[in-house]
Amino acid sequence: MKKYCFGIDVGGTTVKCGLFTTDGEVVDKWEVKTRTEDNGAQILPDIAASIKAKIAEKNIADEVEGIGIGLPGPVDDKGILHGAVNLHWVGDRRIEEEFSALTGYPVKAGNDANVAALGELWKGAGVGYDSLIMVTLGTGVGGGIVINGKVIAGSHGAGGEIGHAHVTDELTDKCNCGCCGCLEQVASATGIARLAREELAASDEASLLRDYPAVSAKSVFDCVKQNDAMAIRVAKRFGDYLAKALSSFAVVADPQAIVIGGGVSKAGEVLLDYIREPYQKYTFFACRETDFVLATLGNDAGIFGAAKLVL
Amino acid sequence: MKKYCFGIDVGGTTVKCGLFTTDGEVVDKWEVKTRTEDNGAQILPDIAASIKAKIAEKNIADEVEGIGIGLPGPVDDKGILHGAVNLHWVGDRRIEEEFSALTGYPVKAGNDANVAALGELWKGAGVGYDSLIMVTLGTGVGGGIVINGKVIAGSHGAGGEIGHAHVTDELTDKCNCGCCGCLEQVASATGIARLAREELAASDEASLLRDYPAVSAKSVFDCVKQNDAMAIRVAKRFGDYLAKALSSFAVVADPQAIVIGGGVSKAGEVLLDYIREPYQKYTFFACRETDFVLATLGNDAGIFGAAKLVL
Repeated sequence: MKKYCFGIDVGGTTVKCGLFTTDGEVVDKWEVKTRTEDNGAQILPDIAASIKAKIAEKNIADEVEGIGIGLPGPVDDKGILHGAVNLHWVGDRRIEEEFSALTGYPVKAGNDANVAALGELWKGAGVGYDSLIMVTLGTGVGGGIVINGKVIAGSHGAGGEIGHAHVTDELTDKCNCGCCGCLEQVASATGIARLAREELAASDEASLLRDYPAVSAKSVFDCVKQNDAMAIRVAKRFGDYLAKALSSFAVVADPQAIVIGGGVSKAGEVLLDYIREPYQKYTFFACRETDFVLATLGNDAGIFGAAKLVL
Repeated sequence: MKKYCFGIDVGGTTVKCGLFTTDGEVVDKWEVKTRTEDNGAQILPDIAASIKAKIAEKNIADEVEGIGIGLPGPVDDKGILHGAVNLHWVGDRRIEEEFSALTGYPVKAGNDANVAALGELWKGAGVGYDSLIMVTLGTGVGGGIVINGKVIAGSHGAGGEIGHAHVTDELTDKCNCGCCGCLEQVASATGIARLAREELAASDEASLLRDYPAVSAKSVFDCVKQNDAMAIRVAKRFGDYLAKALSSFAVVADPQAIVIGGGVSKAGEVLLDYIREPYQKYTFFACRETDFVLATLGNDAGIFGAAKLVL
């Protein structure tokens, strides 16, 4: 194996880029603007130019193993991207071939959330494991599944799209995906704020949550830490929904660990307590003691995982 | 690759054995009694003796690629069996090494339900696919997941134990596993009969189901075919529970196909109609058009899949 590889994480506003040694040390990190005009025609050429400049700067043209690239859209198990709304890309694209032609190096592509899971496995909270489910609790709920060190991309690129598991029949409003009752609707930052607003509206009970002009997932867990009864109820409802979904995922993938990341995970270990307890209640005995850990790489998980794709 | 392989499916009363060509033609099939006395100490030696006799009979000692064995217990992704209640085997066993020592050939072991899924992929309903979820609707609900041609065994051997996904909060009685609200409680043959008894008890509505002294899954689908309103309601409830669970499994594994087998699947294509419709309602758009097919290998799926394990 050669000495270096690149990990690229393409987002709707910026592209995060990393130059790594093939044993996973960060050599350099930088960003490129994502130019979405003209249906994003310049995005791949811009990234290729930036990588070539970095290779020239470091004088490592013969020492690059390859380039991994995480993309904000479904990438199937053949490496084909099925559109990427935030990049203004429509239709199927063979990104690996396209980007390899632009750069001259081998390229592997993956969905950004799946790639982030691989990053955590390689150099983050998942070190020492070879299988995990990563749950990213942000504005939505993303996820990635890694089994025996390999991402489950899925035959339609929907492997790890766990935010859209059906978890409740109680909702009548639709998720962004068009279904009702998705995990994302009750366990994302947005979903936790929804549960809090429901609790606030249901009674006049005193709660620290009432001091916030707009209640958020962060305010819920801040109030949980101050032992606020209503905030604790919200956290329990969130944990119960997520645990039920995880209990189903566990009997499919049976990973060694479940890694919780995304903005909501900044609440810290207390968050895991609210997930682990109902998880043990709902989950098949053989996988009841699955480890729960907080993600550690933050926004860098994507470039780490992308780099690992090509190794 | 050599010309022959063996596929062995160990059950609590009989061991099914198959001699196959390595391209999957059945050369011979036979059974061995499962002797569970003395903590099942004779089970592996009995099978080994039977295989050796078959090899001598056919004079193929130098032409055997290996032996695959499906076992009624959790087999993890390292090939270790974690007990098998029906065989009276307690504790962890390295079956691959043990059975290889007894026979002199390479051995691969897997959980019986997972191995059956691999069998359907190789030579049954899954031919042409390389990923599927198999759901076995029998006395219980079993399952197996195959991704890119490989079984997901799981880190605790619980990969594919989909009968124990939590699907409803409405039940207060416990599943055999100790949890409440498992898929198996509402979608197995036993579960379908339970739903039918609930419907019968809930009203005096006329129904063909009332003509059966003991209602069963078979009687439910027999009555569905005669357009019985109550039986149709039961089938819809069953399909709704199973579809919700499958919608969660789909966003984890995103297979090309869902294969339905087990005794309940003898109801035929009508069964798939009751699953497919709610599945499309609950499932993330990218995997909504996943194919549904009926298993075709019946009780032979296990020996086919076991044989495939070693190839």
